[in-house]
Amino acid sequence: MSKIELSKRQEKILEIVKENGPITGELIADQLHLTRATLRPDLAILTMTGYLEARPRVGYYYTGKTDTQFLSDELKKLLVRDYQSIPIVISVKVSVYDAITTMFLEDVGTLFVVDDQSYLVGVLSRKDLLRASIGNQELTSIPVNMIMTRMPNITVCRQDDLILDVANALIDRQIDALPVVKESEKGLEVIGRITKTNMTKILVSFADEEVIS
Amino acid sequence: MSKIELSKRQEKILEIVKENGPITGELIADQLHLTRATLRPDLAILTMTGYLEARPRVGYYYTGKTDTQFLSDELKKLLVRDYQSIPIVISVKVSVYDAITTMFLEDVGTLFVVDDQSYLVGVLSRKDLLRASIGNQELTSIPVNMIMTRMPNITVCRQDDLILDVANALIDRQIDALPVVKESEKGLEVIGRITKTNMTKILVSFADEEVIS
Repeated sequence: MSKIELSKRQEKILEIVKENGPITGELIADQLHLTRATLRPDLAILTMTGYLEARPRVGYYYTGKTDTQFLSDELKKLLVRDYQSIPIVISVKVSVYDAITTMFLEDVGTLFVVDDQSYLVGVLSRKDLLRASIGNQELTSIPVNMIMTRMPNITVCRQDDLILDVANALIDRQIDALPVVKESEKGLEVIGRITKTNMTKILVSFADEEVIS
Repeated sequence: MSKIELSKRQEKILEIVKENGPITGELIADQLHLTRATLRPDLAILTMTGYLEARPRVGYYYTGKTDTQFLSDELKKLLVRDYQSIPIVISVKVSVYDAITTMFLEDVGTLFVVDDQSYLVGVLSRKDLLRASIGNQELTSIPVNMIMTRMPNITVCRQDDLILDVANALIDRQIDALPVVKESEKGLEVIGRITKTNMTKILVSFADEEVIS
């Protein structure tokens, strides 16, 4: 947003409106000892860029928006459905050893555990598996059931959720991934996964202008 | 940037400049059957917002910038130094078991391994440790030396590097963290760490407008 550099006069107009708004163009011009016509381009720029808003018969008022706020508006629109990855699920009946093997084969950091009917019952992170694996137990004989994070302690999200809410959840709960779920009468179906890698890719895609907006 | 909505006339000007630029304001006005004075606010807006650039004696030309490009400009300025976290380092002499313990104690996903003189010699991810831990070996007797990723296969970054380059490196190399290093005559000193969590936080801070710019 650095491209929108306000002129000194525009900065002055902003200050006048901040202090006195709503205020008419005439009155702004008076304060600056300029004509209304001289100010027209400046006022047009300030409203176009969203710094000011204009209402007929009321005048100009300050929107309180800063440069990065426009950027923020753009970010706040992103939805999970447009950025989610394919989920890797395993049966609740498999062993910790099998879970670790699946994690390496699929090259993911988080596995979702489902019951016989394919509904979500647990989540396994690399950290969970690492903790189990130093326990000096026979990994092939421990079911994932014993070490997974289980409902209702699992944080989930939906396709219509905001990317931003998911990003905040990942940070607050100190986890790497959330399952994207679809509710049915009998339980939660896992239809996607969203990770810190997705977040990193969104950051990069913003810079590359590939973001859907 | 959705706040900057161009008027029909401004869109028309953009098209004229795209096709004929560089072109003078006079000639644009001619094409639109308007006076130069009438166009002045529009041209001012288009240059202020970065869509067009103006050069004396040459005229207006199209910069090829889109809305999200301004956002991208902002992102492209971020530096590692402003977002890095504290690195957790371990000695190359400790065991895999000790490394796993440190990882849990410090609650990080990546450890940096240093030699006697505190210079970087290796990196250990959760994945590396998990792989070692299913090997059925005695973890207390395997030195980290045996399983770590070692120089020159370590991707590093510097404080002055761009966040964007680091984000791309994390994605391309499918890793969770990079060490931030400072070069000295004898080796690389680890002074920070930058992770996908940092990237997720940057994304959120952009939305919250906390980004330094």
